[in-house]
Amino acid sequence: MTRRTTIYDIAKELGITAASVSRALNNNPKISESTRKLVMETAAKMNYKQNKLALALRSGKSFNVGVIVPRIDSNFFASVIRGIEEELNEHQYNVIICQSHENEKREGESINTLLNAQVDGILMSVSNVNSDNSNLLKRIIEKNVPLIFFDRKKNIEGVSSVTINDFDVSYEATVHLIKQGCSRIAHFMGNQTLEIFENRFKGYKKALEDNGIAFNQDYVIQTKSVLEDGKRAVDELFSLESPPDAIFSSSDFTALGAIKQLKMKGIKVPKDFCVVGFGDEPFTKFMELSMTSVDQAPLEMGKMAAKVFLEQINNKDNIKIEKKVVLKSQLLIRDSSSRNIIL
Amino acid sequence: MTRRTTIYDIAKELGITAASVSRALNNNPKISESTRKLVMETAAKMNYKQNKLALALRSGKSFNVGVIVPRIDSNFFASVIRGIEEELNEHQYNVIICQSHENEKREGESINTLLNAQVDGILMSVSNVNSDNSNLLKRIIEKNVPLIFFDRKKNIEGVSSVTINDFDVSYEATVHLIKQGCSRIAHFMGNQTLEIFENRFKGYKKALEDNGIAFNQDYVIQTKSVLEDGKRAVDELFSLESPPDAIFSSSDFTALGAIKQLKMKGIKVPKDFCVVGFGDEPFTKFMELSMTSVDQAPLEMGKMAAKVFLEQINNKDNIKIEKKVVLKSQLLIRDSSSRNIIL
Repeated sequence: MTRRTTIYDIAKELGITAASVSRALNNNPKISESTRKLVMETAAKMNYKQNKLALALRSGKSFNVGVIVPRIDSNFFASVIRGIEEELNEHQYNVIICQSHENEKREGESINTLLNAQVDGILMSVSNVNSDNSNLLKRIIEKNVPLIFFDRKKNIEGVSSVTINDFDVSYEATVHLIKQGCSRIAHFMGNQTLEIFENRFKGYKKALEDNGIAFNQDYVIQTKSVLEDGKRAVDELFSLESPPDAIFSSSDFTALGAIKQLKMKGIKVPKDFCVVGFGDEPFTKFMELSMTSVDQAPLEMGKMAAKVFLEQINNKDNIKIEKKVVLKSQLLIRDSSSRNIIL
Repeated sequence: MTRRTTIYDIAKELGITAASVSRALNNNPKISESTRKLVMETAAKMNYKQNKLALALRSGKSFNVGVIVPRIDSNFFASVIRGIEEELNEHQYNVIICQSHENEKREGESINTLLNAQVDGILMSVSNVNSDNSNLLKRIIEKNVPLIFFDRKKNIEGVSSVTINDFDVSYEATVHLIKQGCSRIAHFMGNQTLEIFENRFKGYKKALEDNGIAFNQDYVIQTKSVLEDGKRAVDELFSLESPPDAIFSSSDFTALGAIKQLKMKGIKVPKDFCVVGFGDEPFTKFMELSMTSVDQAPLEMGKMAAKVFLEQINNKDNIKIEKKVVLKSQLLIRDSSSRNIIL
């Protein structure tokens, strides 16, 4: 049997002290990023296996981080989680995931579950801002467990968040529809207790205003992010005396439902009707008529949320850090709203 | 402040003893299923909140169950997890999820993570049967933590599993293609160290044999469950002297890649070429030409895996139970292989 590689072997290889190797392996902020990387690479090359349990006992950490998302079966949340994992795995943290199914009770259970599992931090996208879970969120903070919101956040003092520029990109999407010649633009609006959906609605409204188009409340339909709601919303819009000629949807799923229902009604997209979704779900590219959508930079969002967590957990001075990161997102113009394309 | 509901209140309401209520709430097998349901419903109606921590201390359980899947962003695994959650939440268990990304090292880390989080059981779909994680799996069993495989399993004595009838449904899918007039049927074959993919391949091969069609090794392409592999495989097949006229794919993702590549090549599906996928991913229905696929009964699989877990955890007599559940799956015939449909 070959002897296990120790931190002393790595220290010898690199000509630094074993203490430095240990600090680097434990993400001690006193060690420079370049040294840490060098130690990590050498450790991997020498097949060094850190004794996690010993590490956990010594540091009082579990090296597990909890992530709570409304659902795992959306490409957006799955990609955010992938970003979190990529960043945290590199720093020897493991990620455990809970889904809340947009259900407050389950969200609360998930928080308890993760706290009982002794996670070192919780990264979450909330299900509903008006929910009753404020006490549980406070419990996280009181326990000194770093809490970071991504995408769907609550405004709680001292809690960091990573979001995208929902207002700006929604404004841009609406202006794009106006430039395509649309003037009766409807909006599929998400849960307004969530800032992201509020900002998408506000961006849409402001773009109309700035372009001299009167806002029409009848064109704003409240939808959940499911196909059926998109279908229902189209039926509702076409029962109006003057139906719209475009939709800016706050979700790809409702936009897909809408396109299917428009097709059923024999309405030609994009010739007679333009549709823009939100989220850049893979199916937006697979469709026979590809769908214009918004890339929410999920991988970057996950990595950034993980970085904010690492900053907080390694903040030995216990200084309160509150960080609001707003990432840039991108409007991806495709067939469903491109009238200049010959079909 | 209103007084909290206690088990005595529930007992009084139902005219049974508090001990019976407690046993029902704790899933004691001595309590009949009907009584348990009644107690649960009454407890919910009376807004009874069980003190989980007290329960955990008393029972020595965490009431957390870990699930490990290769990936969360496939509809199949997301649906299995949903099934597990639906069943376990009802019995007051919470589910925490880890993804292995088909990576043995990450799978091992996930097992450690879940064991350190003190889960009461692990339900998993393995990434690779030849992996080095056998010792870790043994550690689960030695710790007396129930381990249940679903979909992708290893054959380990004493470990239960829930799978589908992969052989039968693959046989059926291949016969379906033969009946559509196809005689040069290719197969996109998954990782043969996994029984599910082995059985899909065997079902395909047997159907050819039974129908007097010679097996052609050139028509069998090893693929991972990603679009790119489907595209690559089509290119490979069409570089053959006698290319195939149909594909039975062990994955929807590779089948989708294949259809896109066939389209690129100007080959008409299903007129000149038939395609059958596997997994019933939602996009199979969204496509302009809907894709024939196999419904793997994921929700049922999840519920069944959870039931097997509950059986084991509530097995106070410590009898070794090994259960092999094989669920029936269903071939869903759609446009991509239906030549009798007028297009």
